[in-house]
Amino acid sequence: MVLRQGDDVLAHLEALMREADIPAASVRGFGFAGLIRFGFFDFERRDYEPRDFRDMEVTALLGTLAWKDGAPAIHAHATATGADFNAVGGHLLALTVGRGSFELTITTHDRRLERRFEEDIGANVLRL
Amino acid sequence: MVLRQGDDVLAHLEALMREADIPAASVRGFGFAGLIRFGFFDFERRDYEPRDFRDMEVTALLGTLAWKDGAPAIHAHATATGADFNAVGGHLLALTVGRGSFELTITTHDRRLERRFEEDIGANVLRL
Amino acid sequence: MVLRQGDDVLAHLEALMREADIPAASVRGFGFAGLIRFGFFDFERRDYEPRDFRDMEVTALLGTLAWKDGAPAIHAHATATGADFNAVGGHLLALTVGRGSFELTITTHDRRLERRFEEDIGANVLRL
Repeated sequence: MVLRQGDDVLAHLEALMREADIPAASVRGFGFAGLIRFGFFDFERRDYEPRDFRDMEVTALLGTLAWKDGAPAIHAHATATGADFNAVGGHLLALTVGRGSFELTITTHDRRLERRFEEDIGANVLRL
Repeated sequence: MVLRQGDDVLAHLEALMREADIPAASVRGFGFAGLIRFGFFDFERRDYEPRDFRDMEVTALLGTLAWKDGAPAIHAHATATGADFNAVGGHLLALTVGRGSFELTITTHDRRLERRFEEDIGANVLRL
Repeated sequence: MVLRQGDDVLAHLEALMREADIPAASVRGFGFAGLIRFGFFDFERRDYEPRDFRDMEVTALLGTLAWKDGAPAIHAHATATGADFNAVGGHLLALTVGRGSFELTITTHDRRLERRFEEDIGANVLRL
């Protein structure tokens, strides 16, 4: 999948999961981000502490496409760099393609995978 | 493969190689690390200079599962970020899953791959 | 594919594309770089601002092998770390293997993929 400037990467992946009825998939990708938002999970607050970065080269995005309660549930992490080449990254909360493009390789799995919220760790966990 | 808090990622991959008799495989993964140990190879001392990082998001782990003298020989590199989103990484020496989980995608190869120690460079090299 | 000290990674991938007549492929890899050159695209100048790094562990290389005007057109991004474990990265302009080796996994696609220069964004874009 090749996405273009302004495209919302997570929304496009969710739409693909619904349209192609993908049971589960592993995704990897790289490209140029106009906006990339990472979150570091705060187990006290049980929420992500977000930070936005703009105009970044995404050097590696790895994710798993699964389902939760009938809806797409994407879990992805990414690494990105700016004009100074220093790398940042983390849990991916949002990603909009910048000038240029974003190339994604999606490897589908035969078996449907579901995520389930686990109260004790306060996070959704993929069930195999 | 989905691993949980406290799991030793390299030990689980080695166990899987033995149990499923995997000839060789490429692995990629991401998740939350309670402890991740990277090493930078010192060619003078012929050993890794290790450093430990705790409570890190692993944004990308890439590795090759092969064999050496009848035992699993895993070579993997990883990138990880902390609460400040700055990325570190290198040759992976140890990785224990933290709160949350760790998702791995393993692509098996048909042909058995072996590593052999090469005296001149002081490192194990994968033989194709 | 396993490359050795002194090998030019992009040149070896281009040669493989020609020899094996690969229509398109996704590539990932990791290993030790003697020299790695990243570029950050300057849309004003329409060229990459390059920077060289030496003796780095490449923690993740992701790329797409395609064709443009009958010649191999490789687009790849990478993350790398030095002895201080801090990560840098970006769009990959050059990569020579250092002491040790470099392991690449190449997933070929059935359909030939072409890149086309797009005047409005000043970059080559992969056509699906």
